[in-house]
Amino acid sequence: MTKEIRIEKKVLSENERLAAELRNKMVLNGVLSLNIVSSPGAGKTSLLEKTLRALKDEFRIAIIAGDVQTENDAKRLIEAGGKWVRPLVTGGSCHLDARMISRELKNLDLKKVDLLIIENVGNLVCPSSYDLGEYMKVVVISVPEGDDKPLKYPGMFKRSGLMIVNKTDLLGTSDFSMDVVKKNALSMNQDLDILEISCRTGEGIEAWYEWLRKHIKRTKKKSV
Amino acid sequence: MTKEIRIEKKVLSENERLAAELRNKMVLNGVLSLNIVSSPGAGKTSLLEKTLRALKDEFRIAIIAGDVQTENDAKRLIEAGGKWVRPLVTGGSCHLDARMISRELKNLDLKKVDLLIIENVGNLVCPSSYDLGEYMKVVVISVPEGDDKPLKYPGMFKRSGLMIVNKTDLLGTSDFSMDVVKKNALSMNQDLDILEISCRTGEGIEAWYEWLRKHIKRTKKKSV
Repeated sequence: MTKEIRIEKKVLSENERLAAELRNKMVLNGVLSLNIVSSPGAGKTSLLEKTLRALKDEFRIAIIAGDVQTENDAKRLIEAGGKWVRPLVTGGSCHLDARMISRELKNLDLKKVDLLIIENVGNLVCPSSYDLGEYMKVVVISVPEGDDKPLKYPGMFKRSGLMIVNKTDLLGTSDFSMDVVKKNALSMNQDLDILEISCRTGEGIEAWYEWLRKHIKRTKKKSV
Repeated sequence: MTKEIRIEKKVLSENERLAAELRNKMVLNGVLSLNIVSSPGAGKTSLLEKTLRALKDEFRIAIIAGDVQTENDAKRLIEAGGKWVRPLVTGGSCHLDARMISRELKNLDLKKVDLLIIENVGNLVCPSSYDLGEYMKVVVISVPEGDDKPLKYPGMFKRSGLMIVNKTDLLGTSDFSMDVVKKNALSMNQDLDILEISCRTGEGIEAWYEWLRKHIKRTKKKSV
């Protein structure tokens, strides 16, 4: 097992090196890059569909849609108006890594992009260990999953900059408490931004668009 | 990366060997062993709480409660009347493996057990690759996760013997279709048993108890 750990460390440090390269490219080109992570079914794709429909004429948005299997998410995002959407099927791997992202980006002119969104594999554990060169990880959790998730999957919440709590239309159908989930998340990471939304009803989603506008603007300024 | 794959194969084959040993022990002692897998928050622990409350006087039940972090699940299961409940905190690892189970079982006299339930880490990807010596994997999915999950995480559904669809009290709050999830799951694995339950209302849960009774009885017969 020691050998396994040594090899894993080597793979991770190679990933860090490549991620740093990617991040540098993003900054130089003024691209805001986000790595969206969550459990399966928390609503990443629904969030991105809404986002494309609302902002596709305001910003130039590129999306890499990762999945263990199927290109269904990418298809949904193209239908929602995505102009540059790449399916990334891992074929079994539980996470995306910087090498996969680097390969996909070979066909993209970053000068023509304001926002790059990477939709990671639905998994609250493994993707937390792999830097994809993103500006920020955004963790999406949903009301039916329970308010204890930040305590049970601390790595993901420690390494994210924004937590989006989705499916607020299901508040009251379980013992999920918004106060408790916020307290739990902030106990892991006191700098976490938090947004409450319902992709189904649209409630709260305008704040997410505002969050994006602010960070896209900031990224442009840095790159000048 | 080739080296990483070789090492991974070695680790997996060592795991297979140990899992076979564990399975043999279970069969000889007439213990039905189940490996419960799901996304985070699908309701594994709620299901086990209900099961303990209903069957703790009928069967001798042992539970290993795996989690990346916190012993909260194990505490809930002890409160529900579990007499032999072991928390197994992986401290970061995204799955349980046969070595961890073997270590926990050192303190358990299998002759005094009818049913061993292993609650895996909430993750629909990695736990599918690790045989824990169980008789069967039971995959729990919940209505809010969406009916496409069997297509997106095929490994887990191919390797499970029973799919439990939980949170049926939330049917109608999204576009989840019970027919579609069944069709998708059976397209991956035509031999899958399927149960529909709501841990919240108790609807359908009696069929799960019956399923357990049948398989515990069968296991006893095999061991005679």
